[in-house]
Amino acid sequence: MAVHALKDLSRLCIHTMTTKPWSLGQAIDGYTRVGVSGITVWRQALAPQGPVDSARMLKDSGLKVVSLCRGGFFPGRTATERAAALDDNRRAIEEAATIGAPLIVLVCGAVPSQPLEESRKQIADGIAAVLPEAESAGVKLGIEPLHPMYADSRSAVNTMAQANDIVEAIGSPFLGVTVDVFHLWWDPSLQAEIRRAGKSIFSFHVCDWRTPTRDLLNDRGLMGEGCIDIRRIRGWVEETGFDGAVEVEIFSDEYWAQDQAAFLEKIKAAYLEHS
Amino acid sequence: MAVHALKDLSRLCIHTMTTKPWSLGQAIDGYTRVGVSGITVWRQALAPQGPVDSARMLKDSGLKVVSLCRGGFFPGRTATERAAALDDNRRAIEEAATIGAPLIVLVCGAVPSQPLEESRKQIADGIAAVLPEAESAGVKLGIEPLHPMYADSRSAVNTMAQANDIVEAIGSPFLGVTVDVFHLWWDPSLQAEIRRAGKSIFSFHVCDWRTPTRDLLNDRGLMGEGCIDIRRIRGWVEETGFDGAVEVEIFSDEYWAQDQAAFLEKIKAAYLEHS
Repeated sequence: MAVHALKDLSRLCIHTMTTKPWSLGQAIDGYTRVGVSGITVWRQALAPQGPVDSARMLKDSGLKVVSLCRGGFFPGRTATERAAALDDNRRAIEEAATIGAPLIVLVCGAVPSQPLEESRKQIADGIAAVLPEAESAGVKLGIEPLHPMYADSRSAVNTMAQANDIVEAIGSPFLGVTVDVFHLWWDPSLQAEIRRAGKSIFSFHVCDWRTPTRDLLNDRGLMGEGCIDIRRIRGWVEETGFDGAVEVEIFSDEYWAQDQAAFLEKIKAAYLEHS
Repeated sequence: MAVHALKDLSRLCIHTMTTKPWSLGQAIDGYTRVGVSGITVWRQALAPQGPVDSARMLKDSGLKVVSLCRGGFFPGRTATERAAALDDNRRAIEEAATIGAPLIVLVCGAVPSQPLEESRKQIADGIAAVLPEAESAGVKLGIEPLHPMYADSRSAVNTMAQANDIVEAIGSPFLGVTVDVFHLWWDPSLQAEIRRAGKSIFSFHVCDWRTPTRDLLNDRGLMGEGCIDIRRIRGWVEETGFDGAVEVEIFSDEYWAQDQAAFLEKIKAAYLEHS
């Protein structure tokens, strides 16, 4: 099935981390100036002025707040560490409610010195522990499976199948998944697992996979610079009924070193041509 | 089930690429001096003196030749490229037969500018095309699934499930899989897929996953330096009946910059303690 190009910016959302050198205020100014519709706010961008002032700035901007990044990091070696992680997720839920973000993206966490199964169990337990508070606050949680190259220390949830398993086991309309093409493009079961996720797909992230990728963390490509057929994956996601934001999340030392306003123009063009 | 430590070096095999600064002659001298039992020869190490002289050197050494690395890289944009890849695999089969290697490890290949499904189809076709010649030469082929971070340009086969699917579809006793802990440790279905592979596991590679991993290619850790429970995975592999070599394959700019004889002592100690 042919997937149509995105013909305007009405679904374009940008992550504050994509323009990391900018403060929240600069990001808001920059995004609104060029017609971006939505913003996903990273907690680092909230910190300087706090969630209350951030909420006011976001409300005044007219930008749609798509999600807060990021909760998660549930695993820990000790009960104390795991309790601290839960507290941090509770703060994230409060922050999301304050800024009007309907969703928190979960980077689930992993501890290299313990077995993956143990981290995976602690993730499911952690989500179950904070979910009632998310529900009370009206904030959804989206499990974002991370690329297997992050299984050591960032997330023990590395495929859509694993995320779907957790979502099905817990069974709340407030728990779903975040599909990020960078993490998932290689998976031969991706189309089937997107279909399985169905209405539990809460958000959709795009960027590209460069060849070569020069750094495990901060060398993501602009859409069209790499090998991911983003539009095809978007088609699979939209076949489930998803019509939400297409969020541009690029970590790139190369782009962060450039003029961010010029980078934003490149993002707009790449979004229309390749997403 | 508790897995026993390896109590001697009778199953220790080292890849020539692990000691990349050494020529084949230097590697043979170094390995035999410290009691290593087997060698997996990379084709780069054969090239300077050619396969015939290499065969004589290997025979004289008493080292067991475990495998030849590497065949594969079947996908190509054009029929000409794919035909060249088949020719190169045929040369690899001849080289393996010449040096007495019973196995060629296949790094299957991928082309970033074509869909993964297309590369996967070309891989299956390529294996089927050269398998009769491998059978005639008495050389087995082992499909090595590579970590998903190499799906763009090195291998579109990224899980044991995919490798098992190809092996089952082709159905020859000369086609099997190579299990490398570095590529596969993160996979939640690894134990099940190792069990499924059963007697088709032809070889077993070890190293470790460092946190942080500073380079996508050349920052593998010595066993025990990272987060992989190597012994547990070896236990799964041995439950299938596998009792072959435990092959140390480490690509590391850090270790390649050190004295290779001293590195070899570290490998021996790490092998006994952590493999």
